Amino acid sequence: MVALFDDERIDYLLADESMKIIQSPTAFSFSLDAVLLAQFAYVPIKRGAILDLCTGNGVIPLLLSRRSQAKITGVEIQERIFQMAQRNIELNELGEKLEVLHADLKDVGPTLQQSSFDVVTCNPPYFKTPSKNEHNHNEYLTIARHEVYCTLEDVVKACKLYVRPGGKVAMVHRPDRLVDIIELFRKYRLEPKRIQLVYPKNGKEANMLLVEGTRDGKPGLKFLPPLYIYNEDGMYTEEAAEIIYG
Amino acid sequence: MVALFDDERIDYLLADESMKIIQSPTAFSFSLDAVLLAQFAYVPIKRGAILDLCTGNGVIPLLLSRRSQAKITGVEIQERIFQMAQRNIELNELGEKLEVLHADLKDVGPTLQQSSFDVVTCNPPYFKTPSKNEHNHNEYLTIARHEVYCTLEDVVKACKLYVRPGGKVAMVHRPDRLVDIIELFRKYRLEPKRIQLVYPKNGKEANMLLVEGTRDGKPGLKFLPPLYIYNEDGMYTEEAAEIIYG
Repeated sequence: MVALFDDERIDYLLADESMKIIQSPTAFSFSLDAVLLAQFAYVPIKRGAILDLCTGNGVIPLLLSRRSQAKITGVEIQERIFQMAQRNIELNELGEKLEVLHADLKDVGPTLQQSSFDVVTCNPPYFKTPSKNEHNHNEYLTIARHEVYCTLEDVVKACKLYVRPGGKVAMVHRPDRLVDIIELFRKYRLEPKRIQLVYPKNGKEANMLLVEGTRDGKPGLKFLPPLYIYNEDGMYTEEAAEIIYG
Repeated sequence: MVALFDDERIDYLLADESMKIIQSPTAFSFSLDAVLLAQFAYVPIKRGAILDLCTGNGVIPLLLSRRSQAKITGVEIQERIFQMAQRNIELNELGEKLEVLHADLKDVGPTLQQSSFDVVTCNPPYFKTPSKNEHNHNEYLTIARHEVYCTLEDVVKACKLYVRPGGKVAMVHRPDRLVDIIELFRKYRLEPKRIQLVYPKNGKEANMLLVEGTRDGKPGLKFLPPLYIYNEDGMYTEEAAEIIYG
């Protein structure tokens, strides 16, 4: 039994009902972005260590645990949401593979060994610091979505700090930040190697960007086939349904 | 009448047979890349000035002249190919709108006014400097395809030099150079604003990249819907056919 607080509820994470997740509409609910990142990221299958920054309720570690036997560590700055992630690990009996730290990625301290992770994933806040008005509306969501506690540079810097040389960093973000992402990846010696654009549907502009870089990697970028989420009729495309329903 | 030399021939540039172009399999033939760039680039419709660097036989100025009343200037470093471009202007009776300069983009001199063009287009050499072996095989093609006379940085620098503040620079290149392109665009204050990836067909990786930046523009990048060239049956897609046949 796992406790639920306030407006929290338990959802199935995947269609096969093998995994559950505690969410809250006012504190943290995972989005498609996290699901796509968990599918896009390279992961070691049998062993190794993965770090997920800005882990929220732990959705990415939960999803990655199905693809990898690696030890997966999440880092979350907001205590209430960190506790949701802890309970999600408990709820799914994944305490042997997954752990989550309540920490600020700018200053995690000695708990995490630098240059030690095979893969670092991150679904960071997308938007620049919000107006005061927006800020007051819902603190939890504001912090998850806006660069309140960490800028994009803080995030990239932390990824670089913890990934091992030759290891990979995978991130989901908005396409309009690609230029910044590429500049920062190069600045921190994370060479962009794979990009996938996500389009809401055929004929629309991309609204999501998946990017993977290799620490100290050689230049050479590939653009994967684009991913479309919806068909003309408003239903998930076959590809999207496969990723979303697992 | 226009003279033809060696293995030169005259092709129709578009399906409506309204425009002709002198090509040579051993000196210069235009590629799909140029056609896509001419379609992707923003152009002023009624007036203004457009510059096309690495113009080759002038294919991009010819194509742009159908979309714009602007004065269009091409720059080509190889004398034989520059002369093909000159004859192409003559052949199509476009001498009032189009001109071509025989010059090195690194040092065009006072003929071209700096910061004066509304749009600069460029289909530059894609590949790093070739081996001696490759170099000896065909000098014309080697120079058109490899960074023999100009690096990517030379090209971006020249684009910056001639485009007016607020004007646009459009380039076609290989996706694996996107990271370099973005770094150089930012270095020379050409903010990337629009990117379109070109995929040979559904399910394949992108093999061409169209990018447009604005001199001194604000950050904010859009990814247009991807362009597919071939259908499953190996025929041009509807979109591609429309661009290619005009």
